[in-house]
Amino acid sequence: METREYSTKGAYVTTGTEFTRDTHYIEDRIVADPEILRTSGGPVGGSIGNPHGGLSEGAQAWPVEAGRYRLVAARACPWANRTIIVRRLLGLEDAISLGTPGPTHDVRSWTFDLDEGGVDPVLGTERVQENYFKRFPGYPRGITVPAIVDVPTGAVVTNDYPQITLDFSTEWKAFHRQGAPDLLPADKLEEMRPVIKRIFTEVNNGVYRCGFAGSQEAYAAAHDRLWAAMDWLEERLATRRYLMGDTITEADVRLFTTLVRFDPVYHGHFKCNRNKLTEMPALWAYARDLFQTPGFGDTVDFDQIKAHYYVVHEDINPTRIVPSGPDLSNWLEPHGREALGGSPFGTGTAPGPVRPGEEVAPGTNPLYPA
Amino acid sequence: METREYSTKGAYVTTGTEFTRDTHYIEDRIVADPEILRTSGGPVGGSIGNPHGGLSEGAQAWPVEAGRYRLVAARACPWANRTIIVRRLLGLEDAISLGTPGPTHDVRSWTFDLDEGGVDPVLGTERVQENYFKRFPGYPRGITVPAIVDVPTGAVVTNDYPQITLDFSTEWKAFHRQGAPDLLPADKLEEMRPVIKRIFTEVNNGVYRCGFAGSQEAYAAAHDRLWAAMDWLEERLATRRYLMGDTITEADVRLFTTLVRFDPVYHGHFKCNRNKLTEMPALWAYARDLFQTPGFGDTVDFDQIKAHYYVVHEDINPTRIVPSGPDLSNWLEPHGREALGGSPFGTGTAPGPVRPGEEVAPGTNPLYPA
Repeated sequence: METREYSTKGAYVTTGTEFTRDTHYIEDRIVADPEILRTSGGPVGGSIGNPHGGLSEGAQAWPVEAGRYRLVAARACPWANRTIIVRRLLGLEDAISLGTPGPTHDVRSWTFDLDEGGVDPVLGTERVQENYFKRFPGYPRGITVPAIVDVPTGAVVTNDYPQITLDFSTEWKAFHRQGAPDLLPADKLEEMRPVIKRIFTEVNNGVYRCGFAGSQEAYAAAHDRLWAAMDWLEERLATRRYLMGDTITEADVRLFTTLVRFDPVYHGHFKCNRNKLTEMPALWAYARDLFQTPGFGDTVDFDQIKAHYYVVHEDINPTRIVPSGPDLSNWLEPHGREALGGSPFGTGTAPGPVRPGEEVAPGTNPLYPA
Repeated sequence: METREYSTKGAYVTTGTEFTRDTHYIEDRIVADPEILRTSGGPVGGSIGNPHGGLSEGAQAWPVEAGRYRLVAARACPWANRTIIVRRLLGLEDAISLGTPGPTHDVRSWTFDLDEGGVDPVLGTERVQENYFKRFPGYPRGITVPAIVDVPTGAVVTNDYPQITLDFSTEWKAFHRQGAPDLLPADKLEEMRPVIKRIFTEVNNGVYRCGFAGSQEAYAAAHDRLWAAMDWLEERLATRRYLMGDTITEADVRLFTTLVRFDPVYHGHFKCNRNKLTEMPALWAYARDLFQTPGFGDTVDFDQIKAHYYVVHEDINPTRIVPSGPDLSNWLEPHGREALGGSPFGTGTAPGPVRPGEEVAPGTNPLYPA
């Protein structure tokens, strides 16, 4: 999701414009029963709580099948980070394998430079672009992560990130672990839809609207918009343990991946600097609560996060120097949110240890000291 | 002091190098008795507490004379800010007038764009460069502020900023206001010299070493160096009201102008981001204490400070967008430093209200709401 379509190297800011995110993706879906899906021009951005709600025009339905697909998700990318978290919370590691491109890339986008020989061990490709081309030769849009690849053909099935995590919850149910939490509780869906929408437009994308603003006016408006939403969240989370109440949901996953990047990247690099996250008492305690919950903080590689933004966005940071700060040890400080009641996994249980080979590198996260 | 010599527009970072500050200035001095000064190759960086210590080779001595000189000092610039503070603390407003270039400039450096018609009302020049050229036609080094100009000839007398404030204290004594503090107390000088030196090399210049680093390695080393000094200051100020003890001195002025720019500029723009100043309890309370003391905060224009760095350093911030943050209202919060004892002006008194016409603009400083 990091590459703007048709971008040339380092061109993330277009002078004089407001940043507008390309929201056109490969909108195929992987579903439990492809037969019951119909073409409905389904909502771009994910049919929350509406699992059989339909396919976008021209999109295809693929069958859920353990071992067939590979999730390609760079740890650096907030949109990909969502999928890594949800896969782990639901225990889909056996059903869907994980490929992790490195944090930095050039105009041809994400590469498997962290893997031995610079090649994904399952897909055999060096660049995610190759997997896009196997699906659509010369694919002209953004080469984004997360992407789910059909391993037999090496072709990208979908990069429709808002739908991917929803389908993990609803379509992959047969493969969930024992005790997997319900991230889309039926009695919360109606309330959750506008919350998730506002988090997307105002926060997840709001930080990019600040960072990629092409004029002082566009930036100032974006900054005001972002902080209006941050104040709303601060208030909402002052009395609720999680966004939707007593247990974690899809909404928390979506907010978390932006919050965890806030002080390390968005505060300075994207000029989202009215305050640090650490200066928002409820939001900061909430973010620490999630960070310390299995499935959240253990997916985070702060070094990759910082390297990605500061190196890739050369038109914002021409020196490509990555800051040494901020001090991140405070993510492990007690959060005190238990006082609000609730329990992260509801009637479910926490996921077990991170799968061997999928751990973040020591020293890149205070949970795993160097 | 903002322009690197021979710089081309926006070229503040040289790839692969550590930032090294040009420390060659016009080292003339304005002194009470030019006759007793001798050429001694005096110490660059100011002869602290050694008022008749000498002149650098080739430099001249000019006589102290009320009304003859004009201090040209942009509010944006930390080195110029020192001189504005000391002039006000000592009550030299009648003796030395003040010209204030605007915050942003091009390759030809500071201009009087804030003045009516874009011309300094006393000097009649549009650019400080003209006053340098009146002294040395084609002057090839940095066109820096602060600079003191001989009004009758329009020629720059000195831009040797470390010496200027020392001479205000020692050479201009005859024109000090009643109750002016002693910023260079004789019994503290020996202890003060290494403190001031360390503050200059590690903090005042240390933030620039971070921001203008030309490689990741140079930056990382600069960041470590800066924070080692910040930790030293945090410890020193935990038990001392001011740097040298119970009263303000030249050392406090020199530290203040960097601290007041820390969170608005250096934290993000120069990547000095281990912490915000607000996260250093003693240093932050100390900075607020000074800010709230007449002569310090009332010289600060945060808008000009932010505009200067973010607009002028185009090779660090190519979009030239100035951040909306940080929230600065916290500068007026109680600091609690009275508990450490001491009194800012010792046996002296606080300066009176800011001279009419020299106030900072409302809305640019929490002392003066919009």
